[in-house]
Amino acid sequence: MKLRVVVTLKNGVLDPQGKAIQHALGSLGFEGVADVRAGKIFELEVADDTSDEQIDEMCRKLLANTVIENYRVERQ
Amino acid sequence: MKLRVVVTLKNGVLDPQGKAIQHALGSLGFEGVADVRAGKIFELEVADDTSDEQIDEMCRKLLANTVIENYRVERQ
Repeated sequence: MKLRVVVTLKNGVLDPQGKAIQHALGSLGFEGVADVRAGKIFELEVADDTSDEQIDEMCRKLLANTVIENYRVERQ
Repeated sequence: MKLRVVVTLKNGVLDPQGKAIQHALGSLGFEGVADVRAGKIFELEVADDTSDEQIDEMCRKLLANTVIENYRVERQ
C-alpha cells in the first residue's frame, strides 16, 4: 500500500525557509508571491494490513514533530 | 491563488534520508515498511494572473533541482 505523508508547519510557527524562498523568487523577478511555506513529504510503501493507528503512530513518533508541525496522510 | 509544488527525487537517485527513516521505523517496531522516499512540498500564495509558464520557471529556477528531482504543481 502506498501512502503519502505531508508534514507542514503549524500556522503561527515561523518558517525561515519559506521566507527565504519568497525573497529569492522576488529577486529572480517573480512578482506577486505573497507567501511561501515549506514542508516535507514522505512516500511510504507499507504492508497492506497496516492499520490506520499504526500509520498515525509512525507520524507522531518519527515523521512529524507535532509540537510545531501538522501531518496529513493521503492514501494512493 | 494557492499552489502546491511537490518536489521528489527521480527514480534511481539514492535517497539516504528515506533509507534512514525506513530503518528508524523498523527499529521502532513498525514492520512491513518496504520503502520510504523523502521529498519537499512548497505551498505558495501567488497572484491570480500568474501564468503556468511563470510557475514552471519558478520550479525550474529555484524550487527543484531538475538534474535529480521531479516536480509536480497542484492547483488548489
